[in-house]
Amino acid sequence: MCNLSRKADASLESLHRVFTIPEEQNSTLGRIEREISENLEGFLQSHIVAVEKDLTDVELDFSDASIPKQPIFVSEQADFLLDKLVSHSVHTASPSFVGHMTSALPYFMLPLSKIMIALNQNLVKTETSKSFTPLERQVTGMLHRLVYKGSDSFYQTYLHDQHYGLGAFCSGGTVANITALWVARNNMFKASEHFAGIHQEGLAAGLVHHGFRGAAILVSERGHYSLKKTADILGLGANNIISIATDDDNRISIKALREKCDELKHAKIKIMAIVGIAGTTETGSVDPLDEMADIAVANDCHFHVDGAWGAPTLFSKKYGPLLKGIERADSVTIDAHKQLYIPMGAGLVVFKDPSALHSIEHHANYIIRKGSKDLGSKTLEGSRPGMAMLVHSGLRILGEQGYELLIDQGIDKTCQFAQLIKQHPDFELCSEPTLNILTYRYCPNWLKPHLAQAEPEKVHAINEVLNRYTKYLQKVQRGRGKAFVSRTQLTPSCYQQQAIVVFRVVLANPLTSMQILEDILTEQAMLANEPEANRYIDKLKALVTEIA
Amino acid sequence: MCNLSRKADASLESLHRVFTIPEEQNSTLGRIEREISENLEGFLQSHIVAVEKDLTDVELDFSDASIPKQPIFVSEQADFLLDKLVSHSVHTASPSFVGHMTSALPYFMLPLSKIMIALNQNLVKTETSKSFTPLERQVTGMLHRLVYKGSDSFYQTYLHDQHYGLGAFCSGGTVANITALWVARNNMFKASEHFAGIHQEGLAAGLVHHGFRGAAILVSERGHYSLKKTADILGLGANNIISIATDDDNRISIKALREKCDELKHAKIKIMAIVGIAGTTETGSVDPLDEMADIAVANDCHFHVDGAWGAPTLFSKKYGPLLKGIERADSVTIDAHKQLYIPMGAGLVVFKDPSALHSIEHHANYIIRKGSKDLGSKTLEGSRPGMAMLVHSGLRILGEQGYELLIDQGIDKTCQFAQLIKQHPDFELCSEPTLNILTYRYCPNWLKPHLAQAEPEKVHAINEVLNRYTKYLQKVQRGRGKAFVSRTQLTPSCYQQQAIVVFRVVLANPLTSMQILEDILTEQAMLANEPEANRYIDKLKALVTEIA
Repeated sequence: MCNLSRKADASLESLHRVFTIPEEQNSTLGRIEREISENLEGFLQSHIVAVEKDLTDVELDFSDASIPKQPIFVSEQADFLLDKLVSHSVHTASPSFVGHMTSALPYFMLPLSKIMIALNQNLVKTETSKSFTPLERQVTGMLHRLVYKGSDSFYQTYLHDQHYGLGAFCSGGTVANITALWVARNNMFKASEHFAGIHQEGLAAGLVHHGFRGAAILVSERGHYSLKKTADILGLGANNIISIATDDDNRISIKALREKCDELKHAKIKIMAIVGIAGTTETGSVDPLDEMADIAVANDCHFHVDGAWGAPTLFSKKYGPLLKGIERADSVTIDAHKQLYIPMGAGLVVFKDPSALHSIEHHANYIIRKGSKDLGSKTLEGSRPGMAMLVHSGLRILGEQGYELLIDQGIDKTCQFAQLIKQHPDFELCSEPTLNILTYRYCPNWLKPHLAQAEPEKVHAINEVLNRYTKYLQKVQRGRGKAFVSRTQLTPSCYQQQAIVVFRVVLANPLTSMQILEDILTEQAMLANEPEANRYIDKLKALVTEIA
Repeated sequence: MCNLSRKADASLESLHRVFTIPEEQNSTLGRIEREISENLEGFLQSHIVAVEKDLTDVELDFSDASIPKQPIFVSEQADFLLDKLVSHSVHTASPSFVGHMTSALPYFMLPLSKIMIALNQNLVKTETSKSFTPLERQVTGMLHRLVYKGSDSFYQTYLHDQHYGLGAFCSGGTVANITALWVARNNMFKASEHFAGIHQEGLAAGLVHHGFRGAAILVSERGHYSLKKTADILGLGANNIISIATDDDNRISIKALREKCDELKHAKIKIMAIVGIAGTTETGSVDPLDEMADIAVANDCHFHVDGAWGAPTLFSKKYGPLLKGIERADSVTIDAHKQLYIPMGAGLVVFKDPSALHSIEHHANYIIRKGSKDLGSKTLEGSRPGMAMLVHSGLRILGEQGYELLIDQGIDKTCQFAQLIKQHPDFELCSEPTLNILTYRYCPNWLKPHLAQAEPEKVHAINEVLNRYTKYLQKVQRGRGKAFVSRTQLTPSCYQQQAIVVFRVVLANPLTSMQILEDILTEQAMLANEPEANRYIDKLKALVTEIA
């Protein structure tokens, strides 16, 4: 390097080493890697601190916003990470972590991920991904087939034809939902005489051209928050996500949906899409998809199914029929990092019509040229990693049977847990499971008759206290570090749509046993009767005494 | 499991094994992992086939759209991947792969990635990420500081205050650009009396409320294609990405920008944002950011800088000043998987104003509740992996000095390569390097005087042939598998804006030596004179003879 001094030469050499010399077997990083390879659960158990540290305390270790001038040793960083980061991360793979949708991973995902990262492919274009491009198209086709059950000849025709696309891979369900509704919007306002299409002229021009006063997306009140975000990004405005009431099983009310459609038509608001949910985030409920498909047809609009959580239920002969009608959807979101058991950062959306993605195609001069096989011409994201390799491996190594077993054991276990809750005198089941999610709360036995019989205002007051009680219990249990359930709010009709705070349990980890679930209830009942919780009990008793 | 038969019990047991028993040391996967750990370059060299196989042939191995019913052995899948996928992937880490923005990775990124994947955190919320949340905020602050150089007290105030955000982490530069312009749009049309804000009411209502006929984004004709995508998604329409002419150095013409601003004002089109580029994708050029900032101020609009490629140039004392004015941007995109040398799938956008992200905040009942520290309330994506851990490690292990060295050696080398091209009789440099990207083409010495002196139509005809020649050479060189340069199209003024196909070289890999670059020229000159290339030479000679 003519411009570099001798000192720089030496630094350059040490820089080269970072790119060429592997970590030693006995270095800190080498040891950690071996530990993970040999005994992942042991590594997580021994390095993650069980008892929760307050987040503001954790922040102290991450409070310097300066980038260090001098390089530090890899071993120093490795020690830091082990001591400060890993120790206070969340043991998402723990069988008693049943509060969110992140579960344990099959062991083979770890070495496979390493291969993926070592190859560092970029799926936006074939020039940086080559074989990964057909692999991703194959995986998309496999999941398209899981949903739509097309014929062999259908897939022979479309799987690798660059002019078509059976879906779009992305980093997760939110981007999948945005992609689906972006496609729906653009297809609704496509080019015609005197209009170059919404992708060129924009939404305002599209509405004017079609003589609509607005465009709306209809989804049940249990719809995922990403849909409001989608309406915001796409320029529709969150007001145009129309929330439809649900029945007692947290399924969209078909009657309310029909009525709303008529109302919007009358008001010259175009229904852009109806969104059905296959596995609501909060309660695991499945909308009546078949009836929704009828309504979408009648209103000539896009029918999207958010199956981020529930779509893999299709692997199950026993429970797959719950999703009847999903095969009539124009698009379906599936999160691979949820019930396909892939590491974080993999989702996709499949489209019934292989030409649906035309409406969002983009091109450039140096990549994703017209006619190229570059996947980036039909995705929201640009550069993307080769996560499809992990999905491909999951689908083949577990097979339909493996996923079926995972689905079946999860739902069966959830039904059993629901029984357990119902049989326990001091708990109340708040949503019956359809898939592998349920909600419940602590509700002491002596309180139940009052909840059932008291005046509405009293019931309301009792529920207010129970809400605070439930929040308290959820936080304390999380803090103790033995188990984790999450919490959400529902508005059940039995309590006149009052917002009720509930524990939420998601049972996807095959290592979660019934014993663990029993222990969770036992711990909650214990926490509920600790002296620190007396203020809730006292308040409840006072309310009941007033009633009496 | 009460509902499962004994046969299912046995399968369940084998399923448990997949989640609990690691791969054996001597299994195929175990061996691959060891090979990668001990000698990554050797692994890639020996497993990736150098000579290109036609993509349609590769597709044959990925043409079955059925998910296998029965599970297959992990070893079978490992062999398949090695044989069919790895072999025909792209050796992006090769020092002679200088065509795209994907480079070699520092070795420590591999074991660190394994820790990240083993922990499987989800950064959308603290309940699934805990310490990763403050870590990500810290990293965002570090990169914010690289750009904006705020005071210690600024970062003490805002780094961990959940009501503010210094930036948003995401999967890559496209999502970063979308996020920046989504924020710009929402802040431009924010809530006021009689208007609930664009995020609620949508774009059409926003335009009406403000009395604008449209909203535009201005960027040079070298702008990244993701900006057109952004305008499409945000509902503005790609027509409202206004492309501004560039000067001979591929920098935006300030005069043309000023004129266009005046014109739009006159037409009641609101200028939503002006986008400056710090490192254009095709030529590595840097717009005059300081002057653009003045124009943005004068037009009261958002000033975004797309520094996906070039922002890390700020690490360099020597070249950092090229980006003068970037500190005046309202938002800056930085791709971590480019010049921060992080594995694929990490980008971010930083915002000057810590309250800028308020305009895109979203909340839900079960996570990202109001007032929570959950990062997901201010990101486009939902679930996201803990890539920030790798950025944190890169910034600390390499330090400012390490990144400075990487930047300096890359740009210095590019200048040297430019000299080499200029000195070579049979090549033509098509864009002078500013950063570490340049373009050139093969142009035999005897042809040069004709290009300089012939009639415009003749020059046009010669360039048409040279364009096909360049395309041919780029493809053949790629196919031979020794080296890879990419290609793009420029419209230089010296050829009256005719589209000229050029080789494009990106020099970010510190292992790329001058010898490798010389060899690339030598191979191109050789390929240009192989019998298969005669048709181009003959055609050129015929044109020249006509001229004579």
